[in-house]
Amino acid sequence: MATWFTEKQTDSFGITAKVNRSLHKEQTDFQELEMLETEEWGNMLVLDDMVMTTEKDEFVYHEMLAHVPLFSHPSPKKVLVVGGGDGGVIREVLKHESVEKAVLVEIDGKVIEYSKQYLPSIAGTLDDPRVDVQVDDGFMHIAKSEREYDVIMVDSTEPVGPAVNLFTKGFYEGIANALKEDGIFVAQTDNPWFKADLIRQAYADIKETFPITKIYTANIPTYPSGLWTFTLGSKIYDPTQVKPERFTDMDTKYYTSELHNASFALPKFVKDLTE
Amino acid sequence: MATWFTEKQTDSFGITAKVNRSLHKEQTDFQELEMLETEEWGNMLVLDDMVMTTEKDEFVYHEMLAHVPLFSHPSPKKVLVVGGGDGGVIREVLKHESVEKAVLVEIDGKVIEYSKQYLPSIAGTLDDPRVDVQVDDGFMHIAKSEREYDVIMVDSTEPVGPAVNLFTKGFYEGIANALKEDGIFVAQTDNPWFKADLIRQAYADIKETFPITKIYTANIPTYPSGLWTFTLGSKIYDPTQVKPERFTDMDTKYYTSELHNASFALPKFVKDLTE
Repeated sequence: MATWFTEKQTDSFGITAKVNRSLHKEQTDFQELEMLETEEWGNMLVLDDMVMTTEKDEFVYHEMLAHVPLFSHPSPKKVLVVGGGDGGVIREVLKHESVEKAVLVEIDGKVIEYSKQYLPSIAGTLDDPRVDVQVDDGFMHIAKSEREYDVIMVDSTEPVGPAVNLFTKGFYEGIANALKEDGIFVAQTDNPWFKADLIRQAYADIKETFPITKIYTANIPTYPSGLWTFTLGSKIYDPTQVKPERFTDMDTKYYTSELHNASFALPKFVKDLTE
Repeated sequence: MATWFTEKQTDSFGITAKVNRSLHKEQTDFQELEMLETEEWGNMLVLDDMVMTTEKDEFVYHEMLAHVPLFSHPSPKKVLVVGGGDGGVIREVLKHESVEKAVLVEIDGKVIEYSKQYLPSIAGTLDDPRVDVQVDDGFMHIAKSEREYDVIMVDSTEPVGPAVNLFTKGFYEGIANALKEDGIFVAQTDNPWFKADLIRQAYADIKETFPITKIYTANIPTYPSGLWTFTLGSKIYDPTQVKPERFTDMDTKYYTSELHNASFALPKFVKDLTE
């Protein structure tokens, strides 16, 4: 008998994937965590019945969340990843030679533990000496940081459960304070087909906090609608005006310097959310 | 009891949509046609169990198939749409004032008939005096046309069933012959996540036939993986070098002139299919 995992991305639409077996399932202190071995996507991390990452398509999200802000900064040395316990963003951050320290603040230690066990191609660099893994509340970590980071990346779940504080104006203000005077911040901000209001609100809030605010997109097949947005706030550097010589060769599967620039060209109905 | 339509986009992955009711279902001479009223996407045309178009997201595919080649040509007057019996591409073509005649050659008259009935916002301009609707075999129509069209758009199903001939080198050669000496052609060429070989082959075949060959992408949530490719062949005009003054204001929901240019920046793993 074949088992299928179905994520209802809305009340009336979803994706469904054939499951070979469940590798692990538990209720953590924060959410329901399940690791599935799927036929199409390889191992898949599911939190509260939502796909977080899969071995086959994870590179899109992780490359685009990391490289767009990092290449927009002339020389990022100290970076923070809020959430992202699977380690995928950290893996991409470490490809930047300028980075001296990468702090990961994940609220749920179980995500880190089971990602290391079942998603080694994603979590494999969490033990790198440049990485400081802290199992802690990202909101609190931000609140007590001041002028500390060059780049901050928010790799959160949807704004339900443990991530609800990470989509607030207070959080964005805290991030601005935790960043150095030329810092850059980016957050995943969901999809424009089913969550237009979320994007509109996040963009407006971030725009009130940062002098330069831009949305960019990427295609992630296992995420709702396949069209994902990231909203970037920057104090000085314009991510759409990166000097060509700043782009260095990097081993990627999705990101290129051309795509960096192109990803800020928004479909009309997405651009309308910023006006 | 809720009914759900599930399209298996691969053997082990699919999408699923809540169905309010089936509006029409029949086996035509060419394929199984079903019109569903869905909760998330509005009315949905399904052929051989594959989603062809929906009221909610159809604009992406139709705008991108039509406007990219049409704006790449300085003054398209006579255009041909092969397939596309739902009328969506024709609706976009007619937005270009230079177009004097738009020929639609759809092999399955039932697609036209039921699109007019159940998808009026898509098929509503098929009765426009500039439109010539022919229920005929697109492959044969191409074979007997010579130096006739400025732009040809191939809006086909997957290369199974009636569309199998539309993904062959012979067809692309026929198209080159049916185009004027400065003509442009575009075809939908499926998605790079599940059909990489199809894209690689189509790109190689079109490149052997046209001096300028480029792939561009768009996000279509109800199509497999959400990342769709279009492959464009052109005799003279480079679609990535359109003069800014050529772009005129147009009532669209997805296409913009910025997105026109940006859509040719390919994810690294897609770009690799062209090398």
